[in-house]
Amino acid sequence: MTDFLVRITISLKEGVLDPEASLIRRALENLGFPTGELKTSRQFLVRFHAENADDARKRAEAMCERLLANPVIHRYEIEVMK
Amino acid sequence: MTDFLVRITISLKEGVLDPEASLIRRALENLGFPTGELKTSRQFLVRFHAENADDARKRAEAMCERLLANPVIHRYEIEVMK
Repeated sequence: MTDFLVRITISLKEGVLDPEASLIRRALENLGFPTGELKTSRQFLVRFHAENADDARKRAEAMCERLLANPVIHRYEIEVMK
Repeated sequence: MTDFLVRITISLKEGVLDPEASLIRRALENLGFPTGELKTSRQFLVRFHAENADDARKRAEAMCERLLANPVIHRYEIEVMK
């Protein structure tokens, strides 16, 4: 078993409304920073034991499916860093 | 003026308690995924006009200072992507 550092990024699927992003865009515009686009996402940097990089990715996927992401509205990206 | 895509990552400063991360670690452990470390951060992908890459970075910094980050507890990273 080796120690792996995995970056999991969870964002909203294309087409899902992001009211928080709209609010932030409006606030930025009021402060003098107009933006053409603004997307929000959540990132988790997780360290855990796995057999190999492939196993680390599978475990991270399972973490997303079972806890971190809501498959109805979220998409996730997994990057095995080390 | 050119269109720039900037990635802003906002995370807690070293030493600031992250109760949400503790909760997620505990939940993952209960599901059979023990982790050695878990850090959370927020990411904003923002598109806006700027004179050049240097100007884009300065604008993104100003957005962090004035709205996106709380300088007491947060650190931010800016990556001008395009």
